[in-house]
Parts: sequence; C-alpha cells; structure tokens
Amino acid sequence: MSPDFFDVVTRQRAHRAFSDRPVTDHDLARLLDAAVHAPSAENRQPWEFVVVRDPHRRAAIGELMRRGWEESGREFERGRLPRALFEDVERGATGGIATAPVHVVVCADVARGLEQTVGSSVFPAVQNLLLAATALGLGSALTTIAVGYAHELAALLALPGHVRPVAVVPVGWPARPLGRPRRDPFGRHTHREVFGVPW
Amino acid sequence: MSPDFFDVVTRQRAHRAFSDRPVTDHDLARLLDAAVHAPSAENRQPWEFVVVRDPHRRAAIGELMRRGWEESGREFERGRLPRALFEDVERGATGGIATAPVHVVVCADVARGLEQTVGSSVFPAVQNLLLAATALGLGSALTTIAVGYAHELAALLALPGHVRPVAVVPVGWPARPLGRPRRDPFGRHTHREVFGVPW
Repeated sequence: MSPDFFDVVTRQRAHRAFSDRPVTDHDLARLLDAAVHAPSAENRQPWEFVVVRDPHRRAAIGELMRRGWEESGREFERGRLPRALFEDVERGATGGIATAPVHVVVCADVARGLEQTVGSSVFPAVQNLLLAATALGLGSALTTIAVGYAHELAALLALPGHVRPVAVVPVGWPARPLGRPRRDPFGRHTHREVFGVPW
Repeated sequence: MSPDFFDVVTRQRAHRAFSDRPVTDHDLARLLDAAVHAPSAENRQPWEFVVVRDPHRRAAIGELMRRGWEESGREFERGRLPRALFEDVERGATGGIATAPVHVVVCADVARGLEQTVGSSVFPAVQNLLLAATALGLGSALTTIAVGYAHELAALLALPGHVRPVAVVPVGWPARPLGRPRRDPFGRHTHREVFGVPW
C-alpha cells in the first residue's frame, strides 16, 4: 500500500467517534516516526509524546475534556460554530473522544526548545502525526481543550515541570467513514504581492 | 506521478539555497490547496497567504532576515547550533533564502480566528505547504526570523491590522539535492502511559 500524498492531505478530517478495534504498536510507531520528521526551530525537536492506552487514564483525560466543555466551551461555542459542527464537537468532548483506544498526549520540552517557538516547533509534528493516521486509515483529531488543565494532566502523566502538554490526539479506527473536510478554496485566502490583490 | 506519503514526510528538509528555475502558478496552487486542507480551531481557517514574486519586495524581505540575523540571531545561535547548521542558517539568512523565486508569507487573521489558537490553527497549514513542496520536488523552509519585524512586513505587504505575519516560506527548486533530515528516533521522545517509561 502506497498512500498518495495529495490524497492523504485532502482526506484528513477530525474524527470524534471510534470503533473498539485496537490500534497496534506497529501502527503507532509509523505515526510517531512521521511526527519526528517535522521541522523545528534550531532543529531542537522539543516534542515529547506520551502514549496512553490505560482505560482509567484515558477516562481521566476524557473527564478533563468534558469539564472544559461544560465549564466554558459549550456556552462559548454555541452560536460560534455551525450546528452540525457544534453537535459533533459536543459529542466528542462529552464521551466520543474518550472512546479512542489511544490518546497521544503531545508535549513540548521548554528546557530543550525555546518557549516562544513551541507553536512553530510542535504543531508541524502534530500535523505529521494526524496525516500519517489518515494515510493508514486511522481516525484522529487535533484537540487542545484538555491542555487547559495542564496541572491535572501533569499529575496524571507524571510530566516534569519543563514538559508542557500542547495537544491531545485521540487515535483509533473511525466509527464510520467520513468524507473530505469542508474548506474554503485557497484562492479566497491568497493574495498576489500585497494583501487584497486576488490570486 | 503519485508521491508516497511516508516517503514525502521522511524526505522533508529545510532548503536555504535555490536555483533560478521558475516556480509556476500551477505548482503554487497545489501547495496552497494542500495548506488549506489543514485543521484549525473551530474550523475558522484563519490563514492568509501573500505570494511574493516581485524581486524588490523579496529583496526587502531578505533584508529583514539579514537584519534579524545580524542584530541578534547570529550571536544568540553561535554555540547553540551545531557548526554545519549554523553555517547553513547564516548563508540562508544573509542571502540564500532571498534567492528563492517565491516567498509565501503566511499570516493569521486574528479577527477570524482566536488569538490564542493561532499556533494550533496556522502551523498545521504551514506544514502541509512544506510537505506539498517536498512532494513536488520543490525546496522550502519554515522561517520566522522576518516576522519579528511585523510592522515592516505589514507596510511592505499592505497587511491590515488584524492580519499578523506568522512565517515566511521560501519556495524554489533546490540549488542541490539534500539528503533526509537528521532527527532523533521517535522512541527517544516517546513514553508509555506516563512520562519516563520508555517506549
């Protein structure tokens, strides 16, 4: 199987519901190997990945998501998100994402990398991980709601003080096939030479 | 041509020297189309791309890079970067990157997307763009040195106040072929269940 690059990129989609089919270490290794090939400031590779399979620990992460959603996310997003997306996010945050057999908690080591370059140095690796999941037919999503509870996540995962959680990526086989994502065509957000001159 | 996803991911490498072979709009369209398929918080797609071909404007961007390097980057990085990387970055910042026939200035619209989600919502798109360049055989790099001069970039590109430059991606055909990037194996930065338990 040789997944075509451009096909993978245009099929990537956030999954928030998963089947109970297990995900093998072999598959996870391919995702993580893709992740660490990403660029980073000074090539510091400040990423750290905690792979969580234990059901109690996953349930605890799921509870942080539910808490984040119920304490502030839901009211904030109501009216901001289109209805179908709101309902999908709500189902995900209140149980769907917790059903993924694996949670990859992506962290930044701010002793190894510079604090101000965490965004540019870790999200490219996260994107590689998500794309690699798509390439294998696995579902995944980029979620950040639980990292609002950095202290609780640190306690749950024994993170040292210099290792900050940045994203929680659920990985599992999709509960059902999803179509391609809805995006504006690139021309709507592309400018020639100066802002405002259309592509 | 059907570039294999995993081959593209493991070949991606920062290019800081380019040939004068032109880059077509058709190629750029494939890069930008890949970019806009990335995930973003609330699916807000807050990216804006300014595609710069004009040689004077590219030279001005190149001058901002040189200034950033000479005013602070060089002394900061001396001793932090391995010698070969230091010399490559120095050559890039003082002229190499300016030779790319195209600079894609990637921006975030903080009126459309939330300010605190710029990192998670724009760098995945940047990574798609870099990977798509690799898939086509084009060279590119994720650079942020010029965005330290946001005011100057805004004047040069007519950016409105709510549109912030996030990265400058040079795109061109590589001056010479580069091998695969040097990265730590993923197992060195992967933990099972809790931090410190090796993969």
